[in-house]
Amino acid sequence: MFVCITCRAQAGENTSDDQPRAGARLLAAIEAVPSELRPSLAVVPVECLSNCNRACTVAVTAPGKWTYVLGALDPDVHAQDVLAFARLHQQHEAGLPAWRERPEYIRKNTIARVPATLA
Amino acid sequence: MFVCITCRAQAGENTSDDQPRAGARLLAAIEAVPSELRPSLAVVPVECLSNCNRACTVAVTAPGKWTYVLGALDPDVHAQDVLAFARLHQQHEAGLPAWRERPEYIRKNTIARVPATLA
Repeated sequence: MFVCITCRAQAGENTSDDQPRAGARLLAAIEAVPSELRPSLAVVPVECLSNCNRACTVAVTAPGKWTYVLGALDPDVHAQDVLAFARLHQQHEAGLPAWRERPEYIRKNTIARVPATLA
Repeated sequence: MFVCITCRAQAGENTSDDQPRAGARLLAAIEAVPSELRPSLAVVPVECLSNCNRACTVAVTAPGKWTYVLGALDPDVHAQDVLAFARLHQQHEAGLPAWRERPEYIRKNTIARVPATLA
């Protein structure tokens, strides 16, 4: 899972340059979740997933599986939803979590998905 | 390169169910470009890249490279821009085309990008 750490909060929120960016806070929130809730899940910070209009952004992917880009994430609210989706993605062979099982906020804020490439 | 063939035209355009969908027309427009302008580029139709709010959608990717999701594409206008971007993506080792070289419309309508997974 890639977490954009350069994401700023969505328009309307106040942030100054001396505060951690919203993306960095989302990363911290995900890493603060007990590790038994995120087994064998690599959480990798990245700079810019080019979804700046709908920050904060996470990409959930794995070799041979679909990639999902999730957006409009609030670091104070959505860490658990992101991890719940990532677990479903891990559990499904092709990385296609069942629509009904996905957290509702993730369903509504999926930015895009891309099939696995043929290596 | 994946082309979403279930994309409908963006809101405001008239389409009826007995016409080909905009995504299918975009695929046809890309395939109509002479093959020397798209060397060794696999163009793969897919059903739904989950970017329906900003259709039509294409994903440009390759093993070991960044994946780019491009949106708001008009099948009558943007086939050449998509292919120009795909050639730049092919030519760059990591799949990161230089910002200034990308077609302007693609720069403005990049939906998201995702790093390569570590296989």
